[in-house]
Amino acid sequence: MKFDRNKHVFHSPDFEEIIKDTIRFFNGTPIQIIPASERFQGTGVYAIYCTAKIGVYKDFHDINRTSYDVPIYVGKAVPAGWRQARSANTENSESYELNNRIREHGRSIEQGAGLKLNDYRCRFMILEGAESDLIGTAEAALIRSYKPLWNSLIDGFGNHDPGSGRYEQAMSDWDVCHPGRLWAKKCKGKHNSKKELLKGIGVFISRLKGEHCNG
Amino acid sequence: MKFDRNKHVFHSPDFEEIIKDTIRFFNGTPIQIIPASERFQGTGVYAIYCTAKIGVYKDFHDINRTSYDVPIYVGKAVPAGWRQARSANTENSESYELNNRIREHGRSIEQGAGLKLNDYRCRFMILEGAESDLIGTAEAALIRSYKPLWNSLIDGFGNHDPGSGRYEQAMSDWDVCHPGRLWAKKCKGKHNSKKELLKGIGVFISRLKGEHCNG
Repeated sequence: MKFDRNKHVFHSPDFEEIIKDTIRFFNGTPIQIIPASERFQGTGVYAIYCTAKIGVYKDFHDINRTSYDVPIYVGKAVPAGWRQARSANTENSESYELNNRIREHGRSIEQGAGLKLNDYRCRFMILEGAESDLIGTAEAALIRSYKPLWNSLIDGFGNHDPGSGRYEQAMSDWDVCHPGRLWAKKCKGKHNSKKELLKGIGVFISRLKGEHCNG
Repeated sequence: MKFDRNKHVFHSPDFEEIIKDTIRFFNGTPIQIIPASERFQGTGVYAIYCTAKIGVYKDFHDINRTSYDVPIYVGKAVPAGWRQARSANTENSESYELNNRIREHGRSIEQGAGLKLNDYRCRFMILEGAESDLIGTAEAALIRSYKPLWNSLIDGFGNHDPGSGRYEQAMSDWDVCHPGRLWAKKCKGKHNSKKELLKGIGVFISRLKGEHCNG
């Protein structure tokens, strides 16, 4: 029998619809403070929104004033062991991965110079059971769609302490702009220029404002 | 506003249907020799089927005789960079990941003692574009459904050369049962007993035969 590649290609127009549904649902979830007012179980996807009125991010107030349209960061919290086997996922809903991840981000914002935690809000979507397989897809779709500032231009917000023996690396762009995390100060490599990074942020946000605020 | 976890949980019955469709499509793809008769592009999921008439796997001949029902191994070939960002995936179809992965497995079988490459066949499903996000899900569903011998009881078939400085680890179960891969011989750790492993394979396959061959 002749080899026919087409017989091996799976197409699923329904899958693209499901990704769109996922994003629509996400954008309709309630806005929450950081950390959320109640500790909750589950894994999934989240976005962080800035509404600062002053400082380098002040234009986010206008951008996100009427609704929370433009995240500054999007991330995921996956079930333990997700990068390996991904077995039955029965225990996902008993973990606090998503809750904990958002709370950690809150601590980074509190510690970061020039940032006030109360200027930040979040959305999150819990994906459990079979739907937990959508976590990576949903996160990627949100990042692709919004290109959030702290996922694109300014890297490092989601970093963890690299641990002893690995401090030869450079401080991340996020830590250069918002110094405060103790472990970040230990990173000894040559980092980017704060002045240049802040200039980049200015350009990025004025473009965003042009796109999202008419007049 | 009171915190209501339920407002954050996304349910998608359609997604479970899509996973089932994916598996049905997979099971309908043409059986191919290893390596495939033509080099092909793409990423996706594959299964390897044994039809040996002699040796420790001889009962697979009866199990897979009429159709290829019971894989001995299931794996995936993901786009480069998949474990990191997962960006637009535009270049997937230009890679040969799936083709190369299956060809590598063919080499392992050729080198492994007690195995004949012509006793093995494969199925594969190409998942590209948006569907490439289904790769991990489809692989996990197939493994969950079939619990293939070389994914469960006998570990190590899909391993790569761990590289110099990491040969203190033990030879994998697969390499103990089917010695031949040069790099595997360098692994110096204490490995499992070949006799015990082969006994386990015997038990595993007679159970399979009971489930799949009536009379």
